[in-house]
Amino acid sequence: MKEKFQIYNTLTRKKEVFEAINPPHVGIYVCGPTVYGDPHLGHARPAITFDVLFRYLKFKGYKVRYVRNITDVGHLENDADSGEDKIARKARIEQLEPMEVVQYYTYRYHKFIEMLNVLPPSIEPVASGHIIEQQELVEKIIENGYAYESNGSVYFDVEEYNKKYIYGKLSGRRIEELMENTRELAGQEEKHNNVDFAIWKKAGPQHIMRWKSKWSEGFPGWHLECSAMSTKYLGYKFDIHGGGMDLLFPHHECEISQTVAAFGQESVKYWMHNNMITINGQKMAKSLGNFINLEQLFTGNHPMLQQAYSPMTIRFFILQAHYRGTLDFSNEALQAADKGLQRLFAGINTLEKLKTSDKSTVNINELSSLCLEAMDDDMNTPILISHLFDGVRMINSVAAGNESLTQEDLSKLKKLYGDFVTDILGLTDEKSGLGSDSLLKEVVDLLLHVRMEAKAKKDYATSDKIRNNLTAMGFEIKDSKDGFDWELP
Amino acid sequence: MKEKFQIYNTLTRKKEVFEAINPPHVGIYVCGPTVYGDPHLGHARPAITFDVLFRYLKFKGYKVRYVRNITDVGHLENDADSGEDKIARKARIEQLEPMEVVQYYTYRYHKFIEMLNVLPPSIEPVASGHIIEQQELVEKIIENGYAYESNGSVYFDVEEYNKKYIYGKLSGRRIEELMENTRELAGQEEKHNNVDFAIWKKAGPQHIMRWKSKWSEGFPGWHLECSAMSTKYLGYKFDIHGGGMDLLFPHHECEISQTVAAFGQESVKYWMHNNMITINGQKMAKSLGNFINLEQLFTGNHPMLQQAYSPMTIRFFILQAHYRGTLDFSNEALQAADKGLQRLFAGINTLEKLKTSDKSTVNINELSSLCLEAMDDDMNTPILISHLFDGVRMINSVAAGNESLTQEDLSKLKKLYGDFVTDILGLTDEKSGLGSDSLLKEVVDLLLHVRMEAKAKKDYATSDKIRNNLTAMGFEIKDSKDGFDWELP
Repeated sequence: MKEKFQIYNTLTRKKEVFEAINPPHVGIYVCGPTVYGDPHLGHARPAITFDVLFRYLKFKGYKVRYVRNITDVGHLENDADSGEDKIARKARIEQLEPMEVVQYYTYRYHKFIEMLNVLPPSIEPVASGHIIEQQELVEKIIENGYAYESNGSVYFDVEEYNKKYIYGKLSGRRIEELMENTRELAGQEEKHNNVDFAIWKKAGPQHIMRWKSKWSEGFPGWHLECSAMSTKYLGYKFDIHGGGMDLLFPHHECEISQTVAAFGQESVKYWMHNNMITINGQKMAKSLGNFINLEQLFTGNHPMLQQAYSPMTIRFFILQAHYRGTLDFSNEALQAADKGLQRLFAGINTLEKLKTSDKSTVNINELSSLCLEAMDDDMNTPILISHLFDGVRMINSVAAGNESLTQEDLSKLKKLYGDFVTDILGLTDEKSGLGSDSLLKEVVDLLLHVRMEAKAKKDYATSDKIRNNLTAMGFEIKDSKDGFDWELP
Repeated sequence: MKEKFQIYNTLTRKKEVFEAINPPHVGIYVCGPTVYGDPHLGHARPAITFDVLFRYLKFKGYKVRYVRNITDVGHLENDADSGEDKIARKARIEQLEPMEVVQYYTYRYHKFIEMLNVLPPSIEPVASGHIIEQQELVEKIIENGYAYESNGSVYFDVEEYNKKYIYGKLSGRRIEELMENTRELAGQEEKHNNVDFAIWKKAGPQHIMRWKSKWSEGFPGWHLECSAMSTKYLGYKFDIHGGGMDLLFPHHECEISQTVAAFGQESVKYWMHNNMITINGQKMAKSLGNFINLEQLFTGNHPMLQQAYSPMTIRFFILQAHYRGTLDFSNEALQAADKGLQRLFAGINTLEKLKTSDKSTVNINELSSLCLEAMDDDMNTPILISHLFDGVRMINSVAAGNESLTQEDLSKLKKLYGDFVTDILGLTDEKSGLGSDSLLKEVVDLLLHVRMEAKAKKDYATSDKIRNNLTAMGFEIKDSKDGFDWELP
């Protein structure tokens, strides 16, 4: 079957039909976190976006190798930095070994991202674990004439590269403007040109994370790890490279240049970028006091939060927007997402109890096609979700007796929600832990049986007491012809 | 205060008072898993043993840096191996990149070890992430004259080392016997002597995990990573090195030799080894069909298991034996541990409800001293647990009105159980998730109130129905003067 899945390719600035290089295998590389701080919303969005891509490709039958890295070294804020990277600075403040900081925040990242039901990637390489591979890449780039050593550091020669290739092809930036606009910063005198960037950096005496090399004791430039690790684990040509839009320039631009300079060809077929997150319309920044990490979101422990929001509410909220659009967090929007998610799972619970007829008055095949079309259209999850809500209305109509379904169509509909809600969107019913807790269920059922018997004996004091108390605890009791039904709303 | 904590030092074969090298800092290095298979009982025991050591030293106020490595490369079964290590072989079978196998089993290790309430270590370095450090160590050892290159591989020269130092000092093995008894295996001809071991191994053409070096494209010998990573993160002299007794020889023996050969001194002050696990008296081995992994234990899904055993039952069972004794797993022993653990937490639950008097007839300070003495005696957790059970008997006597406690003593007793059970032994009440589930509690309380009223009205049919049904669900209903009490046994 011909693939209908279209992906917006940042490189070509248009949607393209996805064609795997070596089907059924697909290689994906996504830029993961720099582990020097707690995971926050800015980590959650790419993790969830590319988790859905991973899940959708697997759903389509591809064998996916998904590589998501951990940056634990070499993430300089700018080249004028004293040579101490973000992780090392944090370590000195806390009087810790940098690797202790790395371990702590990697653990926290895994913990909170897993709560968002993000699947672990196939390989999770760390920058400090690939120093040799990065040094080899530096050697190749020097050999090919696109980098030069200067005072123990090695810089990528952007101007030289641009004579043969195009620096700026991904971001659309023009090198002439970049060369004019790049500010002169302290510590730049080692470079031939301000736009040049470090691929190996000599370590200052205070720098803890350092490795021997033929140029100096130092550490790799930040951009280098992704060129080295993506090609190591996915080959010189692989399918998809993803990341946040904030990484498009300079990180991904430099990554392309390095890979081309080393291997003579680009490695990535489709570049995908998720857009950014704002909080009440503002950029998220520590200085603005609107920096909310995932733990704070899940516990509600932040001055800007009116309540706690569950991991699935956050996941659903993120998926309600298309990944290429900006996404604005607010209490109102999160509360609306929470209600929507509950409505979706209430529909799925109703679906489980539907009775069938000998004919269908609703069109399940059409609904299924629409859901697929939405995902095939550059992972349009908001459209997919709106179709799933149309399906919920259909389910409720069947439950009310206004529409009907055959057994075959009911099975199809259950499969549809299993496929799209559970497998592809990765949403789980957080309430079901309670609702399906067999012990609680048994005890409540016993209590309602006692109530029915009390009513039969006209002992209304007892039956009312039970009903009122259960209602106060949040149970919704529904009397029916056959007896009773109840749920935790 | 003078330290009373005694540790059995495998090196000196006696208990020694623990004296930190740089108090309040303590450095611990423990050999972690080789991630080419699912975590099993053999992984659980060292993880729990050294978790308790980590917890106890922190409880005593030390600042502990606990390094536990992950072996993801270079673990040769023997030097005659074709050059393909365990992880690479598994990868080829599964048609996977070795790092995919590493990621999968590392994830599974973390997941199941965390269920056992083992704290994450401060740093968790991986062998493949420290190739440069290992190569530097090889260079040092060659420079110092204790290793030689042969056909692209580098071997440690045991005989030369033994001229100045003692090879065998940790394990007590004599080099003469080792030289006589080491069998001649294929692929050994590169070595000067059969007891020599590889510190760098040239990779065969089929070997996937390989790195460039001045000797060959290859990979480090298994023993080397621990010498390199322990000294990197803890310094050339650190406090404690732990691991399973199966690692004592050759792994730890070789580790000492490498470190001494490179740095001229031993790095470890106290060597600690946990003993092995047997299953119904037999060694655990895949060929014997008695190989039980942690997931099987937790689910009961193994022909030898009569039931599932919870993570806390496994942890408690392991702690009921001293870490230096062998430990035999059987259904009977695990069921006994499960009962014991329930009795311990039933006591703690009773403790929470104790009423105080104006005088104490029991001696809490003495109990506290006994608990500390047990832990100070080379982490004698079985003795500690027996004292905690004495405390439970004390608690039950106070609850029954046969003994009494002041408010101050009650606070001390609560702190004692918090310190020793929760913080040091790391035991949690798995049932409390249910027992303290406020909704379940409310519903059961309501049901029992209805039952009391039914009894008051002499409606024994209703009150018996409630009681019988709750009992059938596993609740234990206790009528008391004031009303009722219940628990989930």
